[in-house]
Amino acid sequence: MSTAPLQLGVIVGSTRPGRIGREVADWFAAIAERDARFETHVLDLAEIDLPLFDESSHPALGTYEHDHTRRWSELVGAMDAFVFVIPEYNGGFPASVKNAIDFLHREWRDKAAAIVSYGGGSGGLRAALMLRQVLNVLRMHAVLDAVTLRLSEHLDPERRLVPDATLDQQANRLLGELARISVPLRTLRHA
Amino acid sequence: MSTAPLQLGVIVGSTRPGRIGREVADWFAAIAERDARFETHVLDLAEIDLPLFDESSHPALGTYEHDHTRRWSELVGAMDAFVFVIPEYNGGFPASVKNAIDFLHREWRDKAAAIVSYGGGSGGLRAALMLRQVLNVLRMHAVLDAVTLRLSEHLDPERRLVPDATLDQQANRLLGELARISVPLRTLRHA
Repeated sequence: MSTAPLQLGVIVGSTRPGRIGREVADWFAAIAERDARFETHVLDLAEIDLPLFDESSHPALGTYEHDHTRRWSELVGAMDAFVFVIPEYNGGFPASVKNAIDFLHREWRDKAAAIVSYGGGSGGLRAALMLRQVLNVLRMHAVLDAVTLRLSEHLDPERRLVPDATLDQQANRLLGELARISVPLRTLRHA
Repeated sequence: MSTAPLQLGVIVGSTRPGRIGREVADWFAAIAERDARFETHVLDLAEIDLPLFDESSHPALGTYEHDHTRRWSELVGAMDAFVFVIPEYNGGFPASVKNAIDFLHREWRDKAAAIVSYGGGSGGLRAALMLRQVLNVLRMHAVLDAVTLRLSEHLDPERRLVPDATLDQQANRLLGELARISVPLRTLRHA
């Protein structure tokens, strides 16, 4: 099996002004960058700036009309694994995340994924559970290990993220499991 | 209790070019219009044309910065009950629907809702189940009665919608239940 580093896409799911999501993603990406098994890429949906889904053919056909779709397809297609960094809005994940997912199809298939969720008391757990169901339908492989970040415990008075050793450990455990399944999944796709 | 007609918003959830959603919503709205308990309004998200969520304050505060949010707030705030007409994308409902929901907060609260879903073999059932969870978090009251429309059985060769007596009956049963709970819920909000 190939020993080339795994291409890891850290998807910043929230795009709203004032989001904490980019900080959470940067914390996670810094840990991933210290892990030699991965080459880490931050895919910030606010920068990628997709409109609401506007393709007229089913994404499974891969016949994209728009440049923004082709650019996103190329980014996602080049990855071996993903970490979705998501907040919880009304018990689910934000529209920006579902939108970015639904634009594509084969680019996700047979790839490993993990979820870093954040929110109030339950750390975005409900959003993460909904996202798992969607990833499953896309034939992605979501690892059980996750980061479930309770903002009530991890923001300073200026509302900046304060990670701790426990969170770092959760992130590393998630990365270990992601690496473990990404290597054989890569051979599936290149068969 | 007030006997004024209930204001019913039929939300067209899909905004993609080539969608069948508007046809499904128009079929449903025509049935609702024959029901004297309701005044029916088709709220087509493609026409309402919201951007991806771009407010910086939490919608629960109701302090909206953007005109598009204020317009949407006024439309939703004037309704007593909603029917969400949704397709299924990857086991969930489309980003356009979550986006329109997440823009607002109090405008949804203590209102009745029902779901008309459509899709391949399972008629969008998974999308409907996810939407029920979100409506619940918003303290909306989703009726059990639903229309679950299998497109495989209800499209002609030109891919135009062909409803039948069974679907019409489901729509009427849904409207009956929606009316039944909307009347007392209205007194809750006006208390």
